[in-house]
Amino acid sequence: MYETFKPVNRILMGPGPANVHPKVLEALSKPTLGHLDPQFIQLMEEIKALLQYTFKTNNEHTFVISGPGSLGMEASLVNMIEEGDKIIVCVGGYFSNRMAQIAEKVGGNVVLVKENWGRAISPEKLEDALKQNPDTKIVAFVHAETSTGALSDAKTLSKIAHNYNALVIADVVTSLGAVDLFVDDWNLDVVYSCSQKGLACVAGMSPISFSNAAVQHIKNRKTKIKSWFNDFNLLEPYWFGENKRAYHHTAPANQFYALHEALSILKEEGIENSWKRHKENSNKLISRLKDELNLEPIVPTNERIPHLLAIKVPDEIDEAKVRKDLLDKFNLEIGAGLGDLAGKVWRIGLMGYNSNEKMVDYCVDSLKKALNNV
Amino acid sequence: MYETFKPVNRILMGPGPANVHPKVLEALSKPTLGHLDPQFIQLMEEIKALLQYTFKTNNEHTFVISGPGSLGMEASLVNMIEEGDKIIVCVGGYFSNRMAQIAEKVGGNVVLVKENWGRAISPEKLEDALKQNPDTKIVAFVHAETSTGALSDAKTLSKIAHNYNALVIADVVTSLGAVDLFVDDWNLDVVYSCSQKGLACVAGMSPISFSNAAVQHIKNRKTKIKSWFNDFNLLEPYWFGENKRAYHHTAPANQFYALHEALSILKEEGIENSWKRHKENSNKLISRLKDELNLEPIVPTNERIPHLLAIKVPDEIDEAKVRKDLLDKFNLEIGAGLGDLAGKVWRIGLMGYNSNEKMVDYCVDSLKKALNNV
Repeated sequence: MYETFKPVNRILMGPGPANVHPKVLEALSKPTLGHLDPQFIQLMEEIKALLQYTFKTNNEHTFVISGPGSLGMEASLVNMIEEGDKIIVCVGGYFSNRMAQIAEKVGGNVVLVKENWGRAISPEKLEDALKQNPDTKIVAFVHAETSTGALSDAKTLSKIAHNYNALVIADVVTSLGAVDLFVDDWNLDVVYSCSQKGLACVAGMSPISFSNAAVQHIKNRKTKIKSWFNDFNLLEPYWFGENKRAYHHTAPANQFYALHEALSILKEEGIENSWKRHKENSNKLISRLKDELNLEPIVPTNERIPHLLAIKVPDEIDEAKVRKDLLDKFNLEIGAGLGDLAGKVWRIGLMGYNSNEKMVDYCVDSLKKALNNV
Repeated sequence: MYETFKPVNRILMGPGPANVHPKVLEALSKPTLGHLDPQFIQLMEEIKALLQYTFKTNNEHTFVISGPGSLGMEASLVNMIEEGDKIIVCVGGYFSNRMAQIAEKVGGNVVLVKENWGRAISPEKLEDALKQNPDTKIVAFVHAETSTGALSDAKTLSKIAHNYNALVIADVVTSLGAVDLFVDDWNLDVVYSCSQKGLACVAGMSPISFSNAAVQHIKNRKTKIKSWFNDFNLLEPYWFGENKRAYHHTAPANQFYALHEALSILKEEGIENSWKRHKENSNKLISRLKDELNLEPIVPTNERIPHLLAIKVPDEIDEAKVRKDLLDKFNLEIGAGLGDLAGKVWRIGLMGYNSNEKMVDYCVDSLKKALNNV
């Protein structure tokens, strides 16, 4: 007799996934519909509208890539870049570095604007790079760099890029739903995100949005898009075919139920309220970590992602042991450092459903006990 | 107040998704785990072993692509093909045509072996093509062509390909779990499938397996793989890293619970028993459709996918109206024809959890009533 897998009910306060709203888990297990069922088409319509609300955009081409956020990253880059196109990627962490890797893999002529890990991207550095590379077609950056906890000024970076006639790809994987984001007002041409962080949904979907300028850019390509699954021209009739939806792939229907539920809950709260809630709980967490444990984020106050903190590990502490203790004794997952910050920081997330005072208390209390044991 | 989406409990007897086993839906909504949680790593280990059982392979590199079957198709082709490589794609339907499209997009020099829609791929035609193209590196074909209902002789096609020193990519999207498939015995170098058909799971995952020869082929590439998300060299340490799993993407944890449950149920039944069950119920359905409604599959008996029938629509019948009636009045989804067969066939699937006598009866009875109404 086989055994059904019984996952522990972890408290997920790392960089994501965060805990999923119970109503979202409930929605997930509803009966499966076919991807061409009229009821499912209606669901897709509602998801598109809810995503427009969440992204603060009127972009018609707002939909979902049926895979994790990193597939959304690849979809953005492979559609926007033609072989040899110059693209500036602002790199100040693990995920912006991934953008640069993908941009190169899909044929881009990549110019890096390097920033220190843990700092927001410097607008001046971007402007310098654009001056030196006036043939730049695209500027790409990460809004909230999950690996470092740094939040860049997407509005200013986008303005500079457009001043030099470049289009903008912004990774909003960690920002969507949790911190101020205005896709239209900030003129972000392509944005993509994930489902398992600010949206309090299960992992596996990548909300994405293309401005009219981005769509025109894709339509004017001279070469074929080097992916079939992510090809915008094939996804368009699947998500937006007017009289009849063209078949593309079999949608993960149950995942879409979950996303619909998560977005509906967010809309009911009001996105500005969600942003406010994330900031308030984050401030409580930061204060208590400082006051009671003398722990501090590595990122300066005004460059910080509110809901994802990279906390400096004190010199004498074995950071991996603390994480293991938290997991084993307190059922609490926090994140390790990635790349340049491996071993140097803990990453603590208060995202989506988890952004509440009870979680702040649980995190501080557990960390206190774990640190006393070291 | 928002409204939670309430999907109708459809009976899904099209080409997939099929109805999901209730225990699988239950597993789906268990609490989310982080993708680096020791318990989750253990789950991944069990999934790999269960997939080896299901594929009938000892291939070490047997795992899951975190996206639908068509992403598995792209992953197979983008890893195996280098710019300019000659690849023979046997095309006798919509999905094998998609293989050819993707092979071209990722840089392959594609040679087509064309077969009539509704027929198994002719081994003689493949052999002729290989004689004319001795520099062929890869032969790709679809085992069970979902668009036509034709089942090709994967064993013979693979043998011929290897006689000419080509490696084999076989699409087993519709065959896995439902009809005889021996990945090792048939020497299939790369196989990929989906989750929502023979496995009775939700859509959104693509089980995949690479032989040692395929892995060597990838390791010997002279050029970079043109995808990051599907790059075998990055997926390998994520799924197989010995001391520590390398982070790649955030796994859709809840989907993996569902897949684990579905594969466990299949193993408990025994895969040979599942194959037998699919054949028996299919035979019942074929007999009743013929005897009571004079309806017949377009595919000759010995070339037929047992569990997915393309049924010829009688000349005088409005096929779309029948499908709409079945959906509206009997809550039953069957499939339309795709591509060359659009308007000419219905596609009826008895897959996974749905392959049972009750479903046979419900399908025939509903179809009878719907046809009487036309």
